[in-house]
Amino acid sequence: MEIEIEGGSVTRILMGVSESTIKGHPHASISSRGAFDWTIQKIVRHNTSAFKLLFLHVQVPDEDGFDDMDSIYASPEDFKNLMNRDRAKGLHLLEYFVTRCHEIGVSCEAWIKRGDAKEVICHEVKRVQPDLLVVGSRGLGPFQRVFVGTVSEFCVKHAECPVITIKRSADEAPQDPVDD
Amino acid sequence: MEIEIEGGSVTRILMGVSESTIKGHPHASISSRGAFDWTIQKIVRHNTSAFKLLFLHVQVPDEDGFDDMDSIYASPEDFKNLMNRDRAKGLHLLEYFVTRCHEIGVSCEAWIKRGDAKEVICHEVKRVQPDLLVVGSRGLGPFQRVFVGTVSEFCVKHAECPVITIKRSADEAPQDPVDD
Repeated sequence: MEIEIEGGSVTRILMGVSESTIKGHPHASISSRGAFDWTIQKIVRHNTSAFKLLFLHVQVPDEDGFDDMDSIYASPEDFKNLMNRDRAKGLHLLEYFVTRCHEIGVSCEAWIKRGDAKEVICHEVKRVQPDLLVVGSRGLGPFQRVFVGTVSEFCVKHAECPVITIKRSADEAPQDPVDD
Repeated sequence: MEIEIEGGSVTRILMGVSESTIKGHPHASISSRGAFDWTIQKIVRHNTSAFKLLFLHVQVPDEDGFDDMDSIYASPEDFKNLMNRDRAKGLHLLEYFVTRCHEIGVSCEAWIKRGDAKEVICHEVKRVQPDLLVVGSRGLGPFQRVFVGTVSEFCVKHAECPVITIKRSADEAPQDPVDD
């Protein structure tokens, strides 16, 4: 009846992480940080050598469209700079989580993909085959959900591995609950 | 930046467990056993002292109606025996999980409630405030779901704590996938 836990195999947890939507906030979104903290505190705990965290950041090609309204493109170089800026933002986000893992002593990997967040996450689950997918959620009501989409709901239904959705706690929600 | 993990507080995982629907099968359902095994192998691992498992079995008052079609009730005693039999079945189920926890060395508590499974589970989450709810699922398609209800889907939406649904793997499914 004893359950075998192979010493060599760690529990691989894939986390979908996103940037904060709050203007001037250079870091991970509130819900991504909440999901990370919860995973460390409640699942990994002090057993750091038994887990590996995989961070996936999906960049939505059109997401920054509004910011770009003020920009003037005069040469092919300007587009290249834009791409580099996006890339830098994504790397900065991953650096935040990789640094925290390093401090805590849990091994990790992080990467960026471009595309539709919910579809890319489910595709990466199929490719990487983690033991568990953790996604943060703003915990919005049905009315707000219509406008902002629901990556977490889609993943719970379609990802080919167990999924935990970590809702943002009420006291962490920003003034506009659609922000994160 | 270091995350505090209080030494005194364990991660409390509530598991909704059900009896097998397969005739003559005296044990836990396939999906309940799968969810338990997964939780031990992937979450608890060897860190047994950091977790406490809480087993909730919800007995649905009418669930055994079909079995009772063949029974003859001739005295108040017969109904009492029926109640005792239900109680014995529920206790047998909990004994299975408590024994396994004892063997593995993880602390646990187990109890039975009567009512509608999905509502009782969410009510108990509110009362007990676990860190995580784990529910097994048959992983049925939308057509089959119409007939058998979806305790796990309801809990993912309504339980006031993070929820993991562990789908039964395809090779564990019985001949009739509605069985469990």
